[in-house]
Amino acid sequence: MSAKETIAKLRALMQEKKIDVYVIPSADNHQSEYVGEHFKARAFVTGFTGSAGTAVITASEAGLWTDGRYFLQAEQELSGSGVTLFKSGNPGVPSVRDYVAAVLPEGGTLGFDGRLIAMREGCDFADALRAKRGKIEYGQDLVDSVWPDRPKLATEPVFHLVERYSGESTAAKLKRVRAAMHEAGASHHLLTTLDDIAWLFNIRGRDVLYSPLVLAYAIISREKAELFIDASRLPADVTTELEKDDVVFVPYNAIYEAVKLFGKNDVVLLDPERLNYALYQNLPSCVKKVEATNPTILFKAVKNEVELANIERAHIKDGIACTKLMHWLKTQALTTRITEIGVAEKLETLRKEQDGYLWQSFAPICAFKEHAALMHYSATPETDAVLKAGHLFLADTGGNYLEGSTDVTRTIAIGEVSAELKKHFTAVARGMMNLARAKFPYGCKGYNLDVLARQPIWELGIDYKCGTGHGVGYLLNIHEGPSGFRWYSSPSKYEANVLEAGMVITDEPGIYIEGSHGIRIENELVIRKGEETASGQFMHMDTITFVPIDLDAIDPSELSGDEKRYLNRYHKRVYEKLAEHLTDAEREWLQTYTREI
Amino acid sequence: MSAKETIAKLRALMQEKKIDVYVIPSADNHQSEYVGEHFKARAFVTGFTGSAGTAVITASEAGLWTDGRYFLQAEQELSGSGVTLFKSGNPGVPSVRDYVAAVLPEGGTLGFDGRLIAMREGCDFADALRAKRGKIEYGQDLVDSVWPDRPKLATEPVFHLVERYSGESTAAKLKRVRAAMHEAGASHHLLTTLDDIAWLFNIRGRDVLYSPLVLAYAIISREKAELFIDASRLPADVTTELEKDDVVFVPYNAIYEAVKLFGKNDVVLLDPERLNYALYQNLPSCVKKVEATNPTILFKAVKNEVELANIERAHIKDGIACTKLMHWLKTQALTTRITEIGVAEKLETLRKEQDGYLWQSFAPICAFKEHAALMHYSATPETDAVLKAGHLFLADTGGNYLEGSTDVTRTIAIGEVSAELKKHFTAVARGMMNLARAKFPYGCKGYNLDVLARQPIWELGIDYKCGTGHGVGYLLNIHEGPSGFRWYSSPSKYEANVLEAGMVITDEPGIYIEGSHGIRIENELVIRKGEETASGQFMHMDTITFVPIDLDAIDPSELSGDEKRYLNRYHKRVYEKLAEHLTDAEREWLQTYTREI
Repeated sequence: MSAKETIAKLRALMQEKKIDVYVIPSADNHQSEYVGEHFKARAFVTGFTGSAGTAVITASEAGLWTDGRYFLQAEQELSGSGVTLFKSGNPGVPSVRDYVAAVLPEGGTLGFDGRLIAMREGCDFADALRAKRGKIEYGQDLVDSVWPDRPKLATEPVFHLVERYSGESTAAKLKRVRAAMHEAGASHHLLTTLDDIAWLFNIRGRDVLYSPLVLAYAIISREKAELFIDASRLPADVTTELEKDDVVFVPYNAIYEAVKLFGKNDVVLLDPERLNYALYQNLPSCVKKVEATNPTILFKAVKNEVELANIERAHIKDGIACTKLMHWLKTQALTTRITEIGVAEKLETLRKEQDGYLWQSFAPICAFKEHAALMHYSATPETDAVLKAGHLFLADTGGNYLEGSTDVTRTIAIGEVSAELKKHFTAVARGMMNLARAKFPYGCKGYNLDVLARQPIWELGIDYKCGTGHGVGYLLNIHEGPSGFRWYSSPSKYEANVLEAGMVITDEPGIYIEGSHGIRIENELVIRKGEETASGQFMHMDTITFVPIDLDAIDPSELSGDEKRYLNRYHKRVYEKLAEHLTDAEREWLQTYTREI
Repeated sequence: MSAKETIAKLRALMQEKKIDVYVIPSADNHQSEYVGEHFKARAFVTGFTGSAGTAVITASEAGLWTDGRYFLQAEQELSGSGVTLFKSGNPGVPSVRDYVAAVLPEGGTLGFDGRLIAMREGCDFADALRAKRGKIEYGQDLVDSVWPDRPKLATEPVFHLVERYSGESTAAKLKRVRAAMHEAGASHHLLTTLDDIAWLFNIRGRDVLYSPLVLAYAIISREKAELFIDASRLPADVTTELEKDDVVFVPYNAIYEAVKLFGKNDVVLLDPERLNYALYQNLPSCVKKVEATNPTILFKAVKNEVELANIERAHIKDGIACTKLMHWLKTQALTTRITEIGVAEKLETLRKEQDGYLWQSFAPICAFKEHAALMHYSATPETDAVLKAGHLFLADTGGNYLEGSTDVTRTIAIGEVSAELKKHFTAVARGMMNLARAKFPYGCKGYNLDVLARQPIWELGIDYKCGTGHGVGYLLNIHEGPSGFRWYSSPSKYEANVLEAGMVITDEPGIYIEGSHGIRIENELVIRKGEETASGQFMHMDTITFVPIDLDAIDPSELSGDEKRYLNRYHKRVYEKLAEHLTDAEREWLQTYTREI
């Protein structure tokens, strides 16, 4: 069915339901970063397949809003669809909200599937329509009726993450959540974020791209925990286990009626940043709400000792795969035809050889030369570059293992590279190391330490326009709050929390020169409690990524004595962790590439 | 008159005026950091002379609240007064607010001079009294009636800071303020902070200790500027000059009636953080208020080119005095009896030799050995230590010159000092230098960069429990917002503003080991615009303090190559700026103490 036909059917439905303007976002019911196929409604309706975009349909117009990353792709994919492209951020281009407010007739109705719209976004629409006395109809998923072969909500099996991987039972986790509820004076806690739910109930699945999550909602009260999920998908061991902890299974979509049953004596703890508009609207107005961050967000960010031990195991496996890849590249790239996609495939093969490997933890970025300057580059058959001598190749990839998720970036010199490339590479390596070796008092936040990673890069008059690091979930979201490294405030990122012992955060400074090259070196760090002195509790960070940093691209004369010592110590550790898992040839190669400088 | 007699008289007045509880803070009408003698009402009533404290008088009790710095002094000074000491911050000690709420009779009246209480503090009292239906009487200065020889409000002359010092006329400044008012939609701006007023009207005086301020309020409208001041104190040149700019003179205390005349069509821009309770209460409720930071705060923090050129001149003069002092100490301290107070006096004598010097910009801290570990040490005849070989001496002092105010700290080795002292000194010097040489993109705030100063100190497991640096006023307050260096948030300090070109901020890390030693090295920095690259606008900082950093206490083996180069460059500059102003002996000495290492 073409976009034109689909939109015509949508318009007929809109007329029937007396909806003047209909908005279709790129979201699921849980404000997830990645969404499952079932939720790609905007792509289905408009034909534009990029990850970010919003469609607005009126009786006479159809518009698609997306950002600069996708202008070119959107122009191509929307061609002939009758859908107008609105380039978000360009001068004179209205926001979706302003556009909707402008085109809605006086007293008209705006429609959307309220499950896909965040609470604040919905309230913003309501504000914008006030002047025209506009109404909002948020209970209609019109796309569902015009999408004949819509993919099922979820099909992949759900599995139980046993305690040797999770390190904490659901009973113990529920106890901690209930203590937080008690402290907040709440009788109930409404939980809608998929990673929080997967963490709390120790379940994993594949309902969302890359992240091993399960579509579900939860309502936790003092006595029971209602898990809104398609229970037929749960294996018997999971249901048995959870029922012991007074977990009750309720159909997935029943949450929307369930929240209507809260009464005036109930006090519901909910996270206004992580709730969809439909749930929010369905809550009776008499219910007392305690708006606060989900307690599970901090709980799951602070990994327990079992998780930390597992994560180190996952990183050794991942280090083996990445080091084998590096050896392959260093020995083959100059004589064999290797392309960006070829590297991604090779790495996936190497990861699959590792026990406990599930699948990639995010879309791999394998980028050669100037492609690496695009932070979100994804090789396609059309762009797939062949690696050639004299340039840098960047691989930012990760794996989901039962022992945790990894996220690692290495930039690798193919043949001999120029002094300028070495200078930039060395600055990035220095930044990465200087943040990793920070010692700091308890209480510091990421924005206090970020400069350590950037200083060698800023000294060159260069900056990278993104954070230096993000939290990493344990077989959950690869980008996990509430702490990270970024000097400037980016409120939607939830990363301004104090750096707590047990958090796992990436350290990935970079240099990106448009049209020329891109360099990023990324290790993962575990925040650790250090010594307590007369000045208080000090903290430090342990590196848990074990892959050599390419010495071919390092200019040792740019390193201070401390930096050299740190790099040598790191490489010694990489060798110790990996050597026994490699072939003789790889081991010999690794010895050279982890030598003291 | 004894405290007992004074309090008895106060109680008689309280009874007469039907006031049950009376609060006497340590403040002036303007929320100033330092207050004039006229405002030392709490000291007069209780006998406790420390800078921080609040007295609460009831029909039967009298209490004095102060913090840990003053417990010992307060115990001594309150002895026999009948006043109970409340040690703020100690477990179980109620806050003033909680105490007042507890002792006030049902339906009773709390009294205070509402000019001395900040708006928020007054509103907090009102909240606390609500449960008891308590009333607030804020219009009575009872202390005035019981203080026979109360010092006059202000006696020292007021002078005009001519444009060769201020760099901008009042007309031009008023234009900028009015543009900000226009942007905020305000018809009037109520200004009560003394440094903002002194800056705006280019007047200076000596109504407050150390800071060259003048007691005044201002109301700025589109057409005129009312300056509430004792106009008899203004020299003719000032009145003539200001009248040209449509400045109208109104008696100082008339402001309290003037604000009652605002009408419902007036929109008043006021700063809720910088307004006293009486003014706030006197504003008619029909007046529309725009609550925002005073526009003058950012205007005056960004020094103009005339000011910056003057400030550098002031720092050269100050550098001459401090360097002469250092030479004197280095050549005399081992053979002559020199005490802490002796050094302060010597330095004051040397500063007075400098043209344009007015007086000290804050209370000098001259502290030997373990005294230097107390951050707010002030030598008294009882504590005045004699300098001896083998220890460190710290001098944190500053001068007010017509060309601006200075704030400089040097720690000086008396004789040969231990390896541990050198290690600590070198860490502090490295921290000071590493912050000073930062290059960073526009948009950074102090909390992003503070770690650069602390890192070498944190590496030793040591932290200092204060900010690294504060803004410095131009012949105004020595601590001036809205930017500074501090990793943790301290909302009352107003220092979370972006670092703007033209701001002058101190850089003063330290190490304080109780009972042993204290080290602080402080330079002032000017924020400067640097190169604009593809990554955006970069910023850097110029050092404007010119005094040697004692090489006798530096361990060169602890410095990186970059740090050594920076220190050598700095010392070269110090020599170039000062040499011609010194005697032959001093110059020769300076050459040795600014030698390359």
